[in-house]
Amino acid sequence: MAEEESLRKQADLVRRLKQDKAPQEEIAEQVAKLLDMKAKICPEEDRPKFVLKTPKGTRDYSPKQMAIRDRVFSVIIDCFKRHGAETIDTPVFELKETLTGKYGEDSKLIYDLKDQGGELLSLRYDLTVPFARFLAMNKITNIKRYHIAKVYRRDNPAMTKGRYREFYQCDFDIAGQYDPMIPDAECLKIIHEILSALQIGAFVIKVNDRRILDGMFAVCGVPESKFRSICSAVDKLDKMAWDDVRSEMVGEKGLSPEIADHIGEYVQLRGGLSLIEQLLQDPKLSQNKLAREGLEEMKLLFEYLTIFGILEQVSFDLSLARGLDYYTGVICEAVLQQSDQTDESVSVGSIAGGGRYDGLVGMFDPKGRKVPCVGFSVGIERIFSIMEQKVAASEEKIRTTGTQVLVASAQKKLLEERLKLVSELWDSGIKAEVLYKKNPKLLNQLQYCEETGIPLVAILGEQELNDGVVKLRDVATREEVNVRREGIIEEIKRRTCLP
Amino acid sequence: MAEEESLRKQADLVRRLKQDKAPQEEIAEQVAKLLDMKAKICPEEDRPKFVLKTPKGTRDYSPKQMAIRDRVFSVIIDCFKRHGAETIDTPVFELKETLTGKYGEDSKLIYDLKDQGGELLSLRYDLTVPFARFLAMNKITNIKRYHIAKVYRRDNPAMTKGRYREFYQCDFDIAGQYDPMIPDAECLKIIHEILSALQIGAFVIKVNDRRILDGMFAVCGVPESKFRSICSAVDKLDKMAWDDVRSEMVGEKGLSPEIADHIGEYVQLRGGLSLIEQLLQDPKLSQNKLAREGLEEMKLLFEYLTIFGILEQVSFDLSLARGLDYYTGVICEAVLQQSDQTDESVSVGSIAGGGRYDGLVGMFDPKGRKVPCVGFSVGIERIFSIMEQKVAASEEKIRTTGTQVLVASAQKKLLEERLKLVSELWDSGIKAEVLYKKNPKLLNQLQYCEETGIPLVAILGEQELNDGVVKLRDVATREEVNVRREGIIEEIKRRTCLP
Repeated sequence: MAEEESLRKQADLVRRLKQDKAPQEEIAEQVAKLLDMKAKICPEEDRPKFVLKTPKGTRDYSPKQMAIRDRVFSVIIDCFKRHGAETIDTPVFELKETLTGKYGEDSKLIYDLKDQGGELLSLRYDLTVPFARFLAMNKITNIKRYHIAKVYRRDNPAMTKGRYREFYQCDFDIAGQYDPMIPDAECLKIIHEILSALQIGAFVIKVNDRRILDGMFAVCGVPESKFRSICSAVDKLDKMAWDDVRSEMVGEKGLSPEIADHIGEYVQLRGGLSLIEQLLQDPKLSQNKLAREGLEEMKLLFEYLTIFGILEQVSFDLSLARGLDYYTGVICEAVLQQSDQTDESVSVGSIAGGGRYDGLVGMFDPKGRKVPCVGFSVGIERIFSIMEQKVAASEEKIRTTGTQVLVASAQKKLLEERLKLVSELWDSGIKAEVLYKKNPKLLNQLQYCEETGIPLVAILGEQELNDGVVKLRDVATREEVNVRREGIIEEIKRRTCLP
Repeated sequence: MAEEESLRKQADLVRRLKQDKAPQEEIAEQVAKLLDMKAKICPEEDRPKFVLKTPKGTRDYSPKQMAIRDRVFSVIIDCFKRHGAETIDTPVFELKETLTGKYGEDSKLIYDLKDQGGELLSLRYDLTVPFARFLAMNKITNIKRYHIAKVYRRDNPAMTKGRYREFYQCDFDIAGQYDPMIPDAECLKIIHEILSALQIGAFVIKVNDRRILDGMFAVCGVPESKFRSICSAVDKLDKMAWDDVRSEMVGEKGLSPEIADHIGEYVQLRGGLSLIEQLLQDPKLSQNKLAREGLEEMKLLFEYLTIFGILEQVSFDLSLARGLDYYTGVICEAVLQQSDQTDESVSVGSIAGGGRYDGLVGMFDPKGRKVPCVGFSVGIERIFSIMEQKVAASEEKIRTTGTQVLVASAQKKLLEERLKLVSELWDSGIKAEVLYKKNPKLLNQLQYCEETGIPLVAILGEQELNDGVVKLRDVATREEVNVRREGIIEEIKRRTCLP
């Protein structure tokens, strides 16, 4: 490339000068130049012999992406805090045994660490299992906590759709023995608040209950041993047509066509309170204890959601199944609704999901003591994608720093004065920068402000120093005023609304 | 345990009642009780057969620890932002090749992921190498960024001293071709600001320069091939006496006793500007080009530090070497100073360190193009330990939530009214909670406020509902006033200083 070519040329030049017995001075000058060029290049043998990339399914966040990410996080964290949640953190890896037997068919997607002696470890697959382990380990029976952290799945990445192997989950859970459906309803309220605040378009929160599903399977004649695998098949209804799911049930999972068709009648139902009432009258379903329990509590849930005023975005949907094994009651999933004009709408699917899991903590307790839990997880990567596209479309200029003032100089030899002033600004809490050059050009300093969005420039010049003032320039309006040196901090604070 | 014993007793009771042909009603009642108890216990076969713990060298953060952690982070992030830094994020694992050959002797401490097909991966060992990879990959030549994230080292943990296998690093780096020592000086200023703001006691920032060390090794007669390994030996001087380091140099590393003694004379020197001047006059050292360059720039650095007013906490220390291979210029390390009375002082050692690494980015660039960098890392776990001890000693009560008001009821059957009010509060941005019970006792609700530090209670009662008011109680003073229902949000906002 360019650097290496100029290096070779320079080496040729030096060689020629030496051959030609050029004046010592000239040779010395060109040798110095050659050494300087060499210093800027890493020797061949130290350079990478591999492709420069992040691992498959992962990505870096640039400062701009971080700014968007922080915005999304702050909306979510504000909401979690508004509901009185504490926060915890757990290690990125767990003992392999901790994760074993918690995820059903998905267990094959767990990342294991290499056995380098000592314990066998795996990267966490979600934040729910570590949370349950945390509760059991610390004998905690009541907590409302959120946890925002990365989880790891060796899945097929589809990064344009926001599906990664390393991705954030924002989890909120309520653990404790409480009266039915009150915490469950609050979880749905929080999902509703978050998705509304993010302003990423219309959404529906689907809800169902594992007890209703199991009861439905039972009355349709599914053998109990097949409940979980038929549940997984139903779970695919958001991506597959009923006919394909039916073939899977009959073909792969060995259900009789009659039973499958019977299930088919139920899982195509969705609605609100009236559907719940209708199913409570269903001659078969109402005879099943589990289903009746689930339906009665679903009715209660809908009463609470009516009070919360969020009924319009909630749909009782019998096709909602959720993949994970550990759910025991209400389950939910929020999906973004596509706009009808297919022009610019993004296919993003599910962006939050969760449910009740009353048995998981007991699986970690040596005495099997259960702690009922309900919670959900917001899948943030998909939201990032949408936000990034929105920002790109709006041509909004995102600032990646908060710098309020650049300390600049109009002439040479003022580095010390610049450093002195910027140091005073830092010490009084003002966000300030200087360029790291001894004698930067004023134009370059002003340009830096334009590029990075710094609103103010404090300009030092010989005249100003003599007069005991600093020239304060507003970058947007280009207005300049002289401010007394001893009052400059006050003036900057006043202009940037600092206390 | 208790649960299992009561379960057995209850089963016995049911069995006895049946044997005794007790009234059906009584049997049914006790059976229901038994089932209820069973529902709260996880079946034996599903319980863990392993010790419930986090992996060796890792830990969970409880809500209280998170509150302290957030405080520390916010001090550090505020400071990074005050200096105009952007932030980035990188994956927790990198291609194994990315980390290979960057850490010298420490490479054995890298965590590898199991080969499950696909790329070979390792957990990041620090944030510097991923940063350099990020710069090379995106062809970035100028950036000032911070990155706060966990890193992983299979070291011997000493958790009471804050040494973990999974721990946070808070990194700040300036990349770019700039005039000498200006970014380097700013890095030291930032370390100074952070350690001052954290108020964790007196500290010293030791500085040295790899060029001075290499020059010193050269004039003492160390063969160039042994520079790095002798450097590692010098690095141990903060934990070992000179005599032991000398034995290592002579014994293990095969240096002649004379050379070692010669090094010994230098590495016991520490001081300020006058020491730099003295060494610039040193007949041997001043003849070495590298050492002279290092010393002259050290002098410049000290001039800038004088302007920044932080000279008092900076010590030019020839024994400072830093373990990592990639440093090429200034190196630094901040250590807390023990109090003289050995009673309550904590041994914490180094809490921040860094330096200049001008060659690392070039090792990732296919064309070897270098990007000069300087930066440092704050080792936050040790600071957490100190802060936790400080908080424990001060008996300060740390709140783990920010809830401003609990919506409570004085009588039964007011759940719906409570949910209605709390929902309104949430929707107007007030941090509010309700207890998840249908009919909680007022005393329990007030107690919850006392325990968790909630300052206000909005109490609903039949009388209040009839009068169209809510009783607002100040938890600390126990004062109560009736507020008109329609003005309650305004009043709560007024009291909690919300806009």
